[in-house]
Amino acid sequence: MKLYDYHRAPNPRRVRIFLAEKGIEIEKAEIDLGSKQQMETNYKTINSRMSVPMLELDDGNIITESIAICRYFEETQPDPTLFGNNPLDKATVEMWHRRVELEGLMPISDAVRNSVEFFAGRAMAGPIDFVQIPALAERANIRMAFFYNMLNERLNESAYIAGSNFSIADITALVAIDFARIIKQRIGENQTALQCWYDKVSMRPSAVA
Amino acid sequence: MKLYDYHRAPNPRRVRIFLAEKGIEIEKAEIDLGSKQQMETNYKTINSRMSVPMLELDDGNIITESIAICRYFEETQPDPTLFGNNPLDKATVEMWHRRVELEGLMPISDAVRNSVEFFAGRAMAGPIDFVQIPALAERANIRMAFFYNMLNERLNESAYIAGSNFSIADITALVAIDFARIIKQRIGENQTALQCWYDKVSMRPSAVA
Repeated sequence: MKLYDYHRAPNPRRVRIFLAEKGIEIEKAEIDLGSKQQMETNYKTINSRMSVPMLELDDGNIITESIAICRYFEETQPDPTLFGNNPLDKATVEMWHRRVELEGLMPISDAVRNSVEFFAGRAMAGPIDFVQIPALAERANIRMAFFYNMLNERLNESAYIAGSNFSIADITALVAIDFARIIKQRIGENQTALQCWYDKVSMRPSAVA
Repeated sequence: MKLYDYHRAPNPRRVRIFLAEKGIEIEKAEIDLGSKQQMETNYKTINSRMSVPMLELDDGNIITESIAICRYFEETQPDPTLFGNNPLDKATVEMWHRRVELEGLMPISDAVRNSVEFFAGRAMAGPIDFVQIPALAERANIRMAFFYNMLNERLNESAYIAGSNFSIADITALVAIDFARIIKQRIGENQTALQCWYDKVSMRPSAVA
């Protein structure tokens, strides 16, 4: 089993934190997105999407998509659960995780990829080259600010994003918030619940993964 | 238990098809998005995101996000499974479902909401009003065409999107493709595997849900 990884990208970090929380160690291969190694023939042949992370199983099966990889390990090693414990809990984690992805990670990615010079001409990951859309970065900035407020309100009433336990929703939120530092988005001084949560999850050993 | 629904919107349809596949019947309440009923105080009080669908459980718990609602029913009534059966199968369904959402449903939504007159000034669902971004609709059109080709290739080698069984990935793809008819996006004449799959899933009794 091998995980194709890139240490600087946000999506592979989600999987690394997830594995660290479960105490799972697996072989890793670094795909240097900085030098566009994901577009080289070797990698493209097994993963036409040219995405990282990718999990290669011992029988040759390939799983792409960070959360699909996490789901595999949740099923093979449930303890500690990071997607919830019972039907209501699983649905609640799914709900919050989707909110974090759709209202947080996505606008943050849109804001970064449509404004940072490094991504000029590569405004989306994947096989197609797109030019940046400044109006989309602007829209994303507004959504991002809304997301930080929403999270702060939620964390005023809940120890973790999806409830009383640390979950995949916290992992994605931490990764998204750290990614947003590229465009100087910081937690506001009055967003104390969010800051308190951020400090708490950043101090978990998994956060350095 | 009550499902807040709107018969014309794509996301609630995902849940309705899912429930029909499982043979689950529940009480429904129609929230007329056409007349912006989701923004009225009654609904906003229980769902500040003003989104549909929403599931209200008998104990008062609220679940929003279509796939979180589906997850709840997958866990309470696993048969027939629509998110997969074993670790590899579940990861594979998750991978394909995410591809269908990220590479299909999202560009289709972007294309529709950033070009159709009805959505002028409401280019995104949710609590913030955004003007349309024509350049985003253009980008989305290119991505949408890529998605149809990708699906056609996949369905050349697989009976259903995630493998040999019908799954949530097929539900989201069917709903996305039907939604794209608003902007006249059709399956290409040479995309025969996609057309064959479309005809097959459209004829399932659940498709009229």
